[in-house]
Amino acid sequence: MRYKLILEYDGSSFVGWQRQTNGLSVQEVIEAAVEGVCGEAVRLYGAGRTDAGVHARGQCAHLDLAGDPTPDTVRDALNAHLRPHPVCVLDATAVAPNFDARRNAISRHYRYRIVNRRSPLALDALRAWQVAPPLDTQAMSKAAARLVGEHDFSTFRAAECQAASSLRTLDALDVSRAGEDIRIDARARSFLHNQVRIMMGSLVRVGEGKWSPDDLADALDARDRARGGPTAPPHGLTLMTVDYP
Amino acid sequence: MRYKLILEYDGSSFVGWQRQTNGLSVQEVIEAAVEGVCGEAVRLYGAGRTDAGVHARGQCAHLDLAGDPTPDTVRDALNAHLRPHPVCVLDATAVAPNFDARRNAISRHYRYRIVNRRSPLALDALRAWQVAPPLDTQAMSKAAARLVGEHDFSTFRAAECQAASSLRTLDALDVSRAGEDIRIDARARSFLHNQVRIMMGSLVRVGEGKWSPDDLADALDARDRARGGPTAPPHGLTLMTVDYP
Repeated sequence: MRYKLILEYDGSSFVGWQRQTNGLSVQEVIEAAVEGVCGEAVRLYGAGRTDAGVHARGQCAHLDLAGDPTPDTVRDALNAHLRPHPVCVLDATAVAPNFDARRNAISRHYRYRIVNRRSPLALDALRAWQVAPPLDTQAMSKAAARLVGEHDFSTFRAAECQAASSLRTLDALDVSRAGEDIRIDARARSFLHNQVRIMMGSLVRVGEGKWSPDDLADALDARDRARGGPTAPPHGLTLMTVDYP
Repeated sequence: MRYKLILEYDGSSFVGWQRQTNGLSVQEVIEAAVEGVCGEAVRLYGAGRTDAGVHARGQCAHLDLAGDPTPDTVRDALNAHLRPHPVCVLDATAVAPNFDARRNAISRHYRYRIVNRRSPLALDALRAWQVAPPLDTQAMSKAAARLVGEHDFSTFRAAECQAASSLRTLDALDVSRAGEDIRIDARARSFLHNQVRIMMGSLVRVGEGKWSPDDLADALDARDRARGGPTAPPHGLTLMTVDYP
């Protein structure tokens, strides 16, 4: 039986989603839990390969299990075996045998959190990016609107990005503020490697008044990573949801 | 010069606010930072003695410093010396020489966070109490209203509480829910030791349907700790603000 899992994890404890030689990955920890539960060596396929430090509240993945356990059993047994790692299964459902968490996804929603204040973060140190200079969120919002739509996002693409095309459609990039907390919500069918974090580093330049919204639009048009802002730190970023048809 | 500090800290790293022999306290870490900055051995007076595991986003404290540094210098220098401890100074202000963070406080606001879901918490493990059975927040809200006002809170008082009187006036106890997140906001001039956490453990009994709001009112009337609910875990609790005239 094929199962779809919805996963929450604290990215600061892992080298990222994907199995790597230099440390523990989320994928590896869950695959080990499955083996602990079923004795089966299975492969887990995720919707998005989050980087080291990037969190998830709604990562999706699929896997195949023999024996057709009920979805609730899969969820509870995996959660018991995942302890004490900061990873948990929020939901498990049985899906069609051709369901593919990565290929079938029609929308991914990432949220980036900035805490705009002078003091460092005691409680949210690994959950948000602390930015000291006062940020003009109205200017950030105007600039963000210039990135929405179908564009060649080469300016906002990590050098190591392996996507065949740098063309992406950004469905939404919404900036909102409540006191010192700034949230930026990004939605697209898919993103280039580091696209959200480079867009965030660039929007902070606008917020600080170093760039105008026009400067950001010019950077996009240049299709050149050297014209983009810095890559914002991973710990401000969370994969919130992945949507399917 | 006397200074008032507003402090944020992650209580999970400390034995509590107050200096103790069995580990690092918040008070001790800040006093050491002051000594690092000024070379002065000072005593820091806090508005509330939070227990081990309890967080603060707005603890208040006062201290005296020779040399009259500007409040911004006090804040920034302390923050530099507090690293890497998860404690920071959000604000420092110069106050009258008779200001007393504990005695002058007219209101304290604590927030308790419950995540009401079956899966464990990967991201908020040390920030909220995970409760699996579905909680009836309407019943909790009704029961909470029965505790508001001036009462003898002996039922909700730790055995080791040293207060002379168990009479307190609870100004507000508001239960609100957004999806799986439940927040309970408690406000009073002062609280007995563990009062908020025992009230939370009791409200969860109501939420689970084990107690009616009337049962909670009866427990209050009994003035007997044995009639109260369990003490809720400390990591769900945060001291939000302390108010002064």
